[in-house]
Parts: sequence; C-alpha cells; structure tokens
Amino acid sequence: MKRKLTLKLIAKELDVSISTVSKALRDSAEISEDTRQKIKAFAKLYNYKPNNIALSLKNRKTRTIGIIIPQIVHHFFTTVIRGVEQMAREHNYNVIITLSNNDFDKEVLNMELLANGSTDGFILSLSKETMQRDDFRHLTEAIDQGMPVVMFDRIVDEIPCDKVLIDDREGAKLGVNHLIKTGCKKIAIITTEDYITVGKLRTKGYMEALESVGITVDKDLILKLDAIDELNDKAKARIKHFLKGKDIDGVFTINEIFAVTAAKYIMEADKTIPEDVSIVSFSDGELSQHFVPSLTTVSQHGEEMGRKAAELLINKLERPEEEVEQYTTAYIDTSLIERESTKRVK
Amino acid sequence: MKRKLTLKLIAKELDVSISTVSKALRDSAEISEDTRQKIKAFAKLYNYKPNNIALSLKNRKTRTIGIIIPQIVHHFFTTVIRGVEQMAREHNYNVIITLSNNDFDKEVLNMELLANGSTDGFILSLSKETMQRDDFRHLTEAIDQGMPVVMFDRIVDEIPCDKVLIDDREGAKLGVNHLIKTGCKKIAIITTEDYITVGKLRTKGYMEALESVGITVDKDLILKLDAIDELNDKAKARIKHFLKGKDIDGVFTINEIFAVTAAKYIMEADKTIPEDVSIVSFSDGELSQHFVPSLTTVSQHGEEMGRKAAELLINKLERPEEEVEQYTTAYIDTSLIERESTKRVK
Repeated sequence: MKRKLTLKLIAKELDVSISTVSKALRDSAEISEDTRQKIKAFAKLYNYKPNNIALSLKNRKTRTIGIIIPQIVHHFFTTVIRGVEQMAREHNYNVIITLSNNDFDKEVLNMELLANGSTDGFILSLSKETMQRDDFRHLTEAIDQGMPVVMFDRIVDEIPCDKVLIDDREGAKLGVNHLIKTGCKKIAIITTEDYITVGKLRTKGYMEALESVGITVDKDLILKLDAIDELNDKAKARIKHFLKGKDIDGVFTINEIFAVTAAKYIMEADKTIPEDVSIVSFSDGELSQHFVPSLTTVSQHGEEMGRKAAELLINKLERPEEEVEQYTTAYIDTSLIERESTKRVK
Repeated sequence: MKRKLTLKLIAKELDVSISTVSKALRDSAEISEDTRQKIKAFAKLYNYKPNNIALSLKNRKTRTIGIIIPQIVHHFFTTVIRGVEQMAREHNYNVIITLSNNDFDKEVLNMELLANGSTDGFILSLSKETMQRDDFRHLTEAIDQGMPVVMFDRIVDEIPCDKVLIDDREGAKLGVNHLIKTGCKKIAIITTEDYITVGKLRTKGYMEALESVGITVDKDLILKLDAIDELNDKAKARIKHFLKGKDIDGVFTINEIFAVTAAKYIMEADKTIPEDVSIVSFSDGELSQHFVPSLTTVSQHGEEMGRKAAELLINKLERPEEEVEQYTTAYIDTSLIERESTKRVK
C-alpha cells in the first residue's frame, strides 16, 4: 500500500521538525522564507493534502458544547450527559466533557480549556470545593466575556446565566409523603452537610413533609454526612452507627448510595424491607434498579435535565442577535418510582 | 461595577455581529478593510483585552489528552477515566472526554474533533458498531498523520499503536477456577456474542478453565447476549429463561450487570447464593460492591489501565524525536476480589 504523505514524512524527508513543516504550510512568520518555500514546494510536488476538517473548523464556529461536571462515577451525571448528547446531536453539535473531580483549581482549568476556542459555550455543575469556597469569579468572568453558560443541579443563585434545576424541596416532599402514605411514622433522613445545596433543600423538604402531617421533626433522626459522590468507610460507619437500635419504620436518603448502604445494615439487623423499615431514595440509578429489594426512588430525570440544559445553550448560541440578557431558570419535575422497598398504599 | 469590555459589547456598540468583531480583531480577510479598521480602533480606544489563554494556546501545544469511549454509564470506563485524569494531572496535562455512544459515525466525528488541534493525542476504546463493521480507516488515517493514539480494552490487533489490555482469557480463568475451587461442578456462563472481543476471550478462558480440570464444556450452559453496555428487557428475559430450571451450581458472567440480573432470578427461584448457586462476575463496580450478597469479581483495575494508557501517550508526546515507530502492548493484571457470592475455599 502506498503511504499517504503526512507531515511526519515531509519532516523526515527534509530533515526538519514536524512543527516546522506544519508552521511552514500555514505560512507562519516563525519559519524563514527560504524554509517555507522549500517545504511548500515539496508538499505541492507530492500532492500533500492537509486535514481538511482541521482547516474548515478554523473558519467557523466550533459547534461544540462543553460540559464540566464534578464527577463521572455518578449515575445522575452520566444520565445528564446522555440528555445533552441527544439534544446536541439533534442540532448537529458535538459534545466534549471535562471533570473537575470536585476540585476548585481543576474546575477553573477546565473552564479556561473550554473557553479558549474549543467550544461555543458550556454546561456546568459546580464542584464541591467551589461551593465550599464560595468563589465564582472564574464563572462570572467567562460570562462577562460573552461565553454562554448553563448551570444545572449544583448551582449558585447569584450567577447570571441560564439554569436547570429540579425542585429539590418538592422532590423530597414527594418521597417522604410516600413513606407517610404507606404508613410510616418514624422516618429518618440520611443527607449531606448544609453547604451542599441539594442536601440542604432536600432536608428542608423532608422536614416540611413531616410537619404538614403534624409529625414533630426529631433531630436525632437526621444524619448529615460530609460525603456526596462517593461513600468512604467513615461515612459508612456513621450510617451503621446511626441506624443501630433506632426505633424507625422509614428512611429517606438523598442519594441511592446512602440508600443501599442503609438497606444493607437494616437487613443485617434482621429487619425486613419494607415490612419493618421502608426506604425511599432520591436519584434513580442502576443501584436502585438492580438492588434486591429494588428501591422506590424520587427520579430527577437527569436525561431530561441534560436535554433542557442543551436546549437553553443552543438557543443562546443560535440567536446571538437577541442581545438582551435574559436568563431562564427551568425546573424539571421529579417523579416517584415505586418499587419493592416501600409498602403498597392502602 | 464597571463592566469589562467584551466582544459582545463591541458588537452591540458598533451594530455588527460578534463574529464580525472577532474576525476583524483577528484581521480576517472575510471582513472589509474599512470595518476591520473601525472595530480595531474602537477596541484600542477602550482598551479591549482578548482572552489571553486563548491566544497563548494557539502558540503552543495544547497539553490536552482526548479520550473517546463507547459509553459513560459504565463503571469500568469511568474508572479508566479516573486513572487517565490522575496521570495527566501528575504530568500537567488536561483531559477532555467524548462519547461514541457505541455508534460508528459518532466515533469518527469525535476523532475529527479531537484531532483538529484541540488535543495532542488520544486514548480510545472502540464502539460496538465499529467492531461490528470492522472499519478502522478513521483511526489508521489519524495515526498516519502523526497523531499519537493509545487503544485500551476494546481494541483491534492490526491497528499500529500503543495498546493497554487486560488478559481477558486469564481473567476469566481466574474467576472460573475460583468457582471450581469452592466446589462448583456445573458452571454456566453469561457472555456476549463473539464479535465483541472481550466476550469472546472471556468465554475462551471459561472453557479452558473447565477443560483443565476435566469438565466437558456443555453448550447448553453458555448464554451469548447481543448486549454489552446496557441490559434491555429482551436480554433480561433471555437470562431468566436461560437460568430457569437449569441444574447448575455456579454462574460466571462477563460483566456485573449480567451478574446482578442472574442473582435476582436465582433468588426469585428460592435458591440461596452462594450455597445453592455461586456467582463470579467480571468487572468490579458499584453494583458488585453494594449488592446483597456482595459479588465476588475479577477486577480489571480500570484505574491502573487508565494510568498506563496515559503514561504511554505522554511518553509518545514528550519524546517526538524518537521517530522509530515502536508500539507497546501493556497488560494489566486482573485479580480476584472475594466477596459473599462464593463459598469459602476449604
């Protein structure tokens, strides 16, 4: 097979570096006139064809959407990505994803990376550390410079951009109300520390649901963990300790990993689910679906959230003439998915 | 607060589009000389500063690694990404991820996207459709043009590039041998159709493990599914039907979603795990860890695989002078993680 002439082969043939060849073909002033001519003549002689896509891309918008998320080992975020991918595809956009690993510096770096010309705009969910630091300059600067940004899930109210949220309070109420309707009276919650907005709002929803039927909130039945995306041994031990010997008949958790961990300790204590203790979890992922018993969950509809975020971003990108800075906050409805971890409503 | 002058504001002020401003500032010939001068004068007058990062990046290597994977709702791939991220970070590289969604066209598009100047090289695992089509021109062309590529997991032997693999056959043997050692004699396998290399190799390992102790392979105990990343209802029904009434005491599956599905049907048939039927799964993810009973698995060490892939790529990127085309295939060892779904070895 005849080998296609590449930059590499030209470089080898003329005994210069690949970068010199590449620059010479782009007529860069960094390369001497003499070398440039030599390289261009050689390329022409052997009918060298540069990567057309690369050239055409330089002359138009990237048609690429960037996503920055805290974590990828997290079913919810992967479903949001799926939604963004779907909508992007329908509108002929590419998607690239970067991870902050819940780290502030990494989030800033990723933003610079995506804002430097490789994307037209981006969709972001804040890292845990960014929320703790309460420092959002990297975001507001990008927005000031005209970069369209859509935030979802882990957001901050004061940043001027489009946002996609679920109503965490209402979602939690939905879950806790279901426990109440199926006969639970002593309902515990496993949630996160308050600086994580979703944890705070879901805890609020839990309290409101109880109060609305006249159940007094018992602080002893609230466990706040400093964990969100992954559960370390310390957090596991705290869940175990929290449940031990507690007189409860229902547990509401703000994510499914808290739920399956609680379920395990409940079963180890020879209690049955849902007869002795019922469980409802926020977030509908693989664990909830495949666990035995399968878990009743409040679904966040991540895919729909991703679709909505992409839709808002694409709208901004395709209507740049509408210069009025109007921002939308879209709410995605949660819904209850009833499975085996709760009793039937009578 | 005084607003920073942005492209958007310049465009508004001069009543032209943002793209016109941007092109004019880059001296694009697409914009008339007159408009260019007007825009540049305005930008100068108000001391407009373009995004410095964007400018500096155009003059150097991107220091960015691209990843193309088939699916993100898949624990194994997410751990590989984590490994790539770690190694990249240690060497001061960024990482961007794109998904092929197991679709050939999307994989080709993503490759073009990453090869167009936004990354220095990439790490890839082939989409299901690409493997079915047996068409790898997009890859060989990129490699021919001097783009460093590292393949992992779902690879093709004949593509000339660095590769990171686990020994799927040995891994499967490890798992099946463990079932044999704990006393299982009638061991079934749930695997994929042969065009998926990992399925084929793991099935081979299963057969070799059985034969090495004199057990004749029984075709009736082999279930090959046309599913890999997600399990649809049809595949679930086939697993249920396959297990129904079968006289088996062990099941080996090539991924954890097959394993938990099998476990569920086994428990529904009032058999206990591991006493009546033991289970070993390939892939160590969240499902295996959190399922009750937790699953004994053959771990692929995705994180280590990701680290190795990134290391090979960075080596290529930082030693371009070594023009000899030498390619490495690195093997990552698998290991057995013993949990509750198998009996203790006596």
